[in-house]
Amino acid sequence: MEQIISNRELILVAYANEGPVTDAHLKIRETQLDVGSVGKDGSPGDVAVQNLWISVDPYLRQLMKQSDDGLYMPSFQLNQVIRSASVGKVVASANPAFEVGDIVSGFYQVSEYAIVPGGGLRKIDTSVAKPSDYLGLLGMPALTAWSGFTIVGEPNPGDEVFVSAAAGSVGMLVGQLAKIKGCRVVGSAGSDQKVKLLKEEFGFDDAFNYKSETDWDAALARYFPRGIDIYFDNVGGRMLEAVLNNINMKARIPLCGMISQYNQEWKQRFGVRNLLNLVGKCVKMEGFMCVQYLHRMGEFLEEMTGYIKEGKLKYKEDVKEGLESFLEAFNSMFSGDNLGKPVIYLGPPQ
Amino acid sequence: MEQIISNRELILVAYANEGPVTDAHLKIRETQLDVGSVGKDGSPGDVAVQNLWISVDPYLRQLMKQSDDGLYMPSFQLNQVIRSASVGKVVASANPAFEVGDIVSGFYQVSEYAIVPGGGLRKIDTSVAKPSDYLGLLGMPALTAWSGFTIVGEPNPGDEVFVSAAAGSVGMLVGQLAKIKGCRVVGSAGSDQKVKLLKEEFGFDDAFNYKSETDWDAALARYFPRGIDIYFDNVGGRMLEAVLNNINMKARIPLCGMISQYNQEWKQRFGVRNLLNLVGKCVKMEGFMCVQYLHRMGEFLEEMTGYIKEGKLKYKEDVKEGLESFLEAFNSMFSGDNLGKPVIYLGPPQ
Repeated sequence: MEQIISNRELILVAYANEGPVTDAHLKIRETQLDVGSVGKDGSPGDVAVQNLWISVDPYLRQLMKQSDDGLYMPSFQLNQVIRSASVGKVVASANPAFEVGDIVSGFYQVSEYAIVPGGGLRKIDTSVAKPSDYLGLLGMPALTAWSGFTIVGEPNPGDEVFVSAAAGSVGMLVGQLAKIKGCRVVGSAGSDQKVKLLKEEFGFDDAFNYKSETDWDAALARYFPRGIDIYFDNVGGRMLEAVLNNINMKARIPLCGMISQYNQEWKQRFGVRNLLNLVGKCVKMEGFMCVQYLHRMGEFLEEMTGYIKEGKLKYKEDVKEGLESFLEAFNSMFSGDNLGKPVIYLGPPQ
Repeated sequence: MEQIISNRELILVAYANEGPVTDAHLKIRETQLDVGSVGKDGSPGDVAVQNLWISVDPYLRQLMKQSDDGLYMPSFQLNQVIRSASVGKVVASANPAFEVGDIVSGFYQVSEYAIVPGGGLRKIDTSVAKPSDYLGLLGMPALTAWSGFTIVGEPNPGDEVFVSAAAGSVGMLVGQLAKIKGCRVVGSAGSDQKVKLLKEEFGFDDAFNYKSETDWDAALARYFPRGIDIYFDNVGGRMLEAVLNNINMKARIPLCGMISQYNQEWKQRFGVRNLLNLVGKCVKMEGFMCVQYLHRMGEFLEEMTGYIKEGKLKYKEDVKEGLESFLEAFNSMFSGDNLGKPVIYLGPPQ
């Protein structure tokens, strides 16, 4: 039975290889979607979802470039709908695993409605956490924080931990996990308001505004008189270099992403000059992506929901509404104007 | 009983913070040594040795600088005798563990004769290998190659392995270990003669002269059409950057040293711009020093002597004679003029 819905979707009309992403690159397209056709066009397991929440994350910047220059997911295709982690409500289903009304999450089209293969969706448990938490507190940012900090970072009680972009969607969880594991943790962020948030809401032992510090080497020496054992790196570049001048023997550096570097082509990026310190201090620096650890999702959810029930984990979202707010939400991560993890709400008025 | 011997020793008279080390930094001092006094001056376990062989290694460059800029051993002190790994013959002993005539190895004074605490010496087994092999084939370079490649590098059969400074004291062993572990291995070196040595003597699958290649990115793409799984890095800098543009998912990069960078102060060193590739490819880069693995010396010796007995490991030394050849031997590693591991013979005419 035909069931035509007016739909809006976000398409990439030009690659943004350098500099900020603008409306010259991303445009909203209005279309019609026949959600009644689900499963009848040769894709028998499809599900139609109404999008409720869209996750806005820094790594998407890399997928809007022509070449896969440093991150390993293929770039978005031109004139196609971009994709992101999202939470939606099933409005039609040709898949026995999903019923109309189910709340699901997955990585799919950034649009108001979407037809998605059922294999890419997962029903979420809204008794444990609210729907948007599956994009943050229990979503990819959390799997990233958990796997990067606990598996790659190998924390020990008493370790000195530094987190950059600490008020970001991943950083705020890393700091709280560090406290849970008995470490001392200091975060850097880009505004005094964020610094306050880190210390007063998320329990960081200390925090500083990197924009107010002229000499990051000296700042780190001041915040870490005993040196750094774990650096959870979200920014790369000059801050990584400053960390390497304050690093301890046998330290671990999980490399999560390098937001300071995404807007440049690789040859224009900051060159880190003191990698020899990795040798002298026997340091492990390891890049990772949360998808490597999807097979440990069960263990992750059990541990994290345990902390949530004990009241040990807080989370802060920066909510914007409507597909037209995507660019603003996206660019806020690079300017540092966001306060909390950016998500976009598309559902009915709350 | 007094037993005065004419001695010569190498002292550091000025720190060499940048550029090559010259005779303005290192000088030979003539002294008298009373080897008959061993153990009678309040150091009861001392041993007097006549030096036979001195090891000449790149890391010593870092110890001739004023600050410990990237490597973790303390700098040599001004106007003191420098130290290096050495093999000597006991000429007097106040230590029950050593008898006159024993052949011993240790890290001690670069001089013709030396008085050394017995705790820093180890008797060597000259039935397994010749004395100078304990500075190379079974010495620190070998422990470095073995621990860096097999422990940090985590090789699997079929892995694509790249070794820089492959004709160096460590590199030539890494290549042979890679073949033993079932990998394909390509090395880079600084002369056609070394390239020939790698392919014809040490069994590398391929090798190239980095001085003849203008575009290292392109050269590596040609030598590694399937990408690089393990990069055993001895040089750092621009070659490391080129490797990161040819690296495979989940690759391992044991960082052994960065000979291309030692002659510069850290802010003058080459800045590696594409570290974001570590994230996108989930790569582990880990600095190490062989001293971390001294507790696995037994396992190391068993494995390596096994290979030696099976004829699977070859080694090449670049022998010079006399203390006055130290500077030439040392600088040959930075100019690339050495062919094989530099060692200095101080013993009686062979």
